[in-house]
Amino acid sequence: MTTTLPDAARALLDAPEQATIATVEPDGQPQLSPVWVKRDGDDILFSTTRGRRKPQNIERTGQVSVLVWPKDQPYSYLEVRGSATITDDPTGALIEELSQKYTGGPYAAEPEGTQRVIVRVSPRKVLWRG
Amino acid sequence: MTTTLPDAARALLDAPEQATIATVEPDGQPQLSPVWVKRDGDDILFSTTRGRRKPQNIERTGQVSVLVWPKDQPYSYLEVRGSATITDDPTGALIEELSQKYTGGPYAAEPEGTQRVIVRVSPRKVLWRG
Repeated sequence: MTTTLPDAARALLDAPEQATIATVEPDGQPQLSPVWVKRDGDDILFSTTRGRRKPQNIERTGQVSVLVWPKDQPYSYLEVRGSATITDDPTGALIEELSQKYTGGPYAAEPEGTQRVIVRVSPRKVLWRG
Repeated sequence: MTTTLPDAARALLDAPEQATIATVEPDGQPQLSPVWVKRDGDDILFSTTRGRRKPQNIERTGQVSVLVWPKDQPYSYLEVRGSATITDDPTGALIEELSQKYTGGPYAAEPEGTQRVIVRVSPRKVLWRG
């Protein structure tokens, strides 16, 4: 059962604002990372690589939460709690697109063998404080 | 078993940078909130109120994680995974101190009966990307 995002929350996700994502470690402790995000309909997408804790936690739990606020309005924020799936991104298309969005340039070269994946978060619960 | 913070991480926590904290809901989903923080030695303190999900989750799990980055250097960041305890703050001294730190002025009046508490996060694992 997924839900939708208010228009202002969509606009926030379309801006180059750094987001925080949370997964949960096997011992129950939350694990936090700053990420670049893009919106696809009501879903939130970010890029990570195989071998990190994030994708391992996501494959185990199927859960990700996302928090983002505008740098110039830190008391507005969007929290999304969602179900998450992982797909391979062998060409790194998403990280390239995100790099263009956030930096205006290409993404730095990565070590040979880096396996990029796309995490898609479908909102189950949305809190928007405008 | 707690650990210590690098000097640069201490300086970041001493600046008025908004942090993100994560707790875990009973269903295992991470819950994220933006908070004002202060540092006390190597511990991170923030204020919340009784009746919210945060203190309920913290009392159940004893775990909080914190992420913070400098607004003008978003690729530096500090992640702290810690054990957390809650104490009463009947006069709201901490939220007043945090309001002065972050806004330079007093905290807005709160509804009668608001019960402020202090959450103290003692680092068990620290990731500093400077």
